[in-house]
Amino acid sequence: MTTSLSTRVWRNVRLSPCADPAHVIDNAALAVREGRIAWFGPAGTLPPEFANAESHDLGGRWVTPGLVDCHTHLVHGGQRADEFALRLAGASYEEIARRGGGIVSTVRATRAADEDTLFTQAARRLEDLLAEGVTAIEIKSGYGLDLATERKMLRVARRLGQAYPVTVKTTFLGAHALPPEYAGRADEYIALVTDEMLPALAAEGLVDAVDVFCENIGFSLAQSERVFAAASRAGLPVKVHAEQLSNLGGTQLAARYRALSADHLEYLDEAGVAAMKAAGTVAVLLPGAFYFIRETKLPPLDLLRRFDVPIALATDANPGTSPTTSLLLMLNMAATLFRMTVAETLAGVTRHGARALGLADSHGEIAVGRPADFVAWSVDTLAELVYRFGGNPCHCVVRHGEIVRTAEKENA
Amino acid sequence: MTTSLSTRVWRNVRLSPCADPAHVIDNAALAVREGRIAWFGPAGTLPPEFANAESHDLGGRWVTPGLVDCHTHLVHGGQRADEFALRLAGASYEEIARRGGGIVSTVRATRAADEDTLFTQAARRLEDLLAEGVTAIEIKSGYGLDLATERKMLRVARRLGQAYPVTVKTTFLGAHALPPEYAGRADEYIALVTDEMLPALAAEGLVDAVDVFCENIGFSLAQSERVFAAASRAGLPVKVHAEQLSNLGGTQLAARYRALSADHLEYLDEAGVAAMKAAGTVAVLLPGAFYFIRETKLPPLDLLRRFDVPIALATDANPGTSPTTSLLLMLNMAATLFRMTVAETLAGVTRHGARALGLADSHGEIAVGRPADFVAWSVDTLAELVYRFGGNPCHCVVRHGEIVRTAEKENA
Ligand SMILES: [Zn+2]
Ligand SMILES: [Zn+2]
Repeated sequence: MTTSLSTRVWRNVRLSPCADPAHVIDNAALAVREGRIAWFGPAGTLPPEFANAESHDLGGRWVTPGLVDCHTHLVHGGQRADEFALRLAGASYEEIARRGGGIVSTVRATRAADEDTLFTQAARRLEDLLAEGVTAIEIKSGYGLDLATERKMLRVARRLGQAYPVTVKTTFLGAHALPPEYAGRADEYIALVTDEMLPALAAEGLVDAVDVFCENIGFSLAQSERVFAAASRAGLPVKVHAEQLSNLGGTQLAARYRALSADHLEYLDEAGVAAMKAAGTVAVLLPGAFYFIRETKLPPLDLLRRFDVPIALATDANPGTSPTTSLLLMLNMAATLFRMTVAETLAGVTRHGARALGLADSHGEIAVGRPADFVAWSVDTLAELVYRFGGNPCHCVVRHGEIVRTAEKENA
Repeated sequence: MTTSLSTRVWRNVRLSPCADPAHVIDNAALAVREGRIAWFGPAGTLPPEFANAESHDLGGRWVTPGLVDCHTHLVHGGQRADEFALRLAGASYEEIARRGGGIVSTVRATRAADEDTLFTQAARRLEDLLAEGVTAIEIKSGYGLDLATERKMLRVARRLGQAYPVTVKTTFLGAHALPPEYAGRADEYIALVTDEMLPALAAEGLVDAVDVFCENIGFSLAQSERVFAAASRAGLPVKVHAEQLSNLGGTQLAARYRALSADHLEYLDEAGVAAMKAAGTVAVLLPGAFYFIRETKLPPLDLLRRFDVPIALATDANPGTSPTTSLLLMLNMAATLFRMTVAETLAGVTRHGARALGLADSHGEIAVGRPADFVAWSVDTLAELVYRFGGNPCHCVVRHGEIVRTAEKENA
């Protein structure tokens, strides 16, 4: 029996392997070998092979899986604080558009920024998320709307995954908005997306999934389907921004393509929910955007529960409708605004978030053989993670068995 | 001309002396001597006497006054996350009360905790606020409801002000709720507050102001007035929790006692606003509580603006209705939920917050002769402080001329 240096035991843990308050081991130990979970269970039953491993005492802290933020637009140029200020001062959307605001201003800034600038700006936002225990994240393109800039965004996303201790899944969202140079020619733009951008970027290994903004102010069902079909030809899974402002049927369409997730969903109806259930599609709810745009139509939680559709939560971090970098705050907003339970919100940023990224077998749960990605929290109960808003009780983050972050305040 | 070691110059600053986006010095310098602001202005006009002082380059960052959180219940025992979880799971208020929840559970926990425990728990929350640039804070008692525990809370508040780089103003809130042992004898309890607790605690130097929860579920107008009268006899200024759930007239009553502030105010009417204006009383709005209890009645912003009543913002940090420790998040919530402008929200956590604490002459503004309390922010515009939610762009905090905090991420 050898004890390699890369074997570690974490002791004095209150362990919630699935981030489920109903399934907890009160005085647990957790053994990691070669970056993977080797064993966990009641401390008293620790197998002798781990007895001499390097040991860490977590002081009775709660441990959950690393968090998953499964819907972000983290890479983008500029920010839109001045637009926000103008709107509060009474400016109309038309006035803001006339002044060059709105999504086109982010497209302009993203096209103008070089790759290193985009990287540095996104890295600051990523650091905020990692400080809260995020160990896997999705990052979308969609502010380039031309091949060169979409490529630049996706390359930055990949670089972030190399530079930081986080698993990055990239999503190509060429069909996010119609670029100004294609005004009035949406079908031609979709042809560019499906026939040039997607094949090129997929060939470069930059695309893990393909997404479409299916909405009256985005792309039609027919246009969305052309993108999904192209993704299927390329062997890539799809996602959809759907039923956020109206019920267009994008979710049902995406479900026909066995979408990993359908996201937003405030206006989703029962037929859409049933289609998701049949396809195994995850519902990704985005309470930050709901809050920020002062939406009043609630997503159909009761239907999603009735059909047992897995519900994930994410930041939707983006400069226009959700300028946030706190996944913990999304827990509180989902509870406060959507009345999701503590167990639902925690599942939403762990195992259901992982499933929305096609990572159900590796992330979102502490299980033997999986990567040892977990977080220790300075809280009395798991519910406290949801109850507090605007704080960060993260004590330390472990990824692939290594401590990648410890709280500044060791006493906390 | 001597340049003492305690003279420092901060260069390369975008300075907003009143946290007002309309009054900004783009390339400013700021000189500090003996812990006070000695000079500020355009960098090119720095007086020669400061030329050789120790110099700090802020890299073009924005600088505002230190923030003021003028309404908190930071010192308390326990937390109420499980009650929050129960409510989300469908438990009624009655059920929660039967299980020992609600404010009485915080009273019980606060009475049971020793002073050092209360200190340690409150210190964690205070550190969150300080990390966001707070340099002055109000801390209320009100979970003891007996002399010994109210004293313990106020002593902890004073100790926090000694242990941390922050100006603490204490508020005695003995009339926060009726303690269980006085059930049905509210008038007797008020006599205890006015005749025993207040005189004793004031004599010990523990009280800077006196507050009452004037509400149907709190204390009546007549009872509130007895407390205000006792405060006046003791030479102490008053504050009031009023018109949060109904319009009882507590604000007008408090204005007759020239209250420093009236707080919450969702149900305030025009007569109340006019009384505040005449008395110079500050309106303290608490968007965190509004959000958390899902209030729908908005405070009368238009009336407050029309009467030119100064509007402050605060966290209301407390375990029952606002378990938050982020004043920056309150900026975004005031803008998003109340539609306050960027300038209004920033004034709310600086000069108007200071005025609500009787600190209008020393805090909330960068001015020659005042304590050198200021914050440098890693943002492009002041509006970004309000626009983002769930992040913390604080670069460094200076209090009394000393750097008391720098961001972990120096590159940020
Ligand atoms: Zn999105
Ligand atoms: Zn209060």
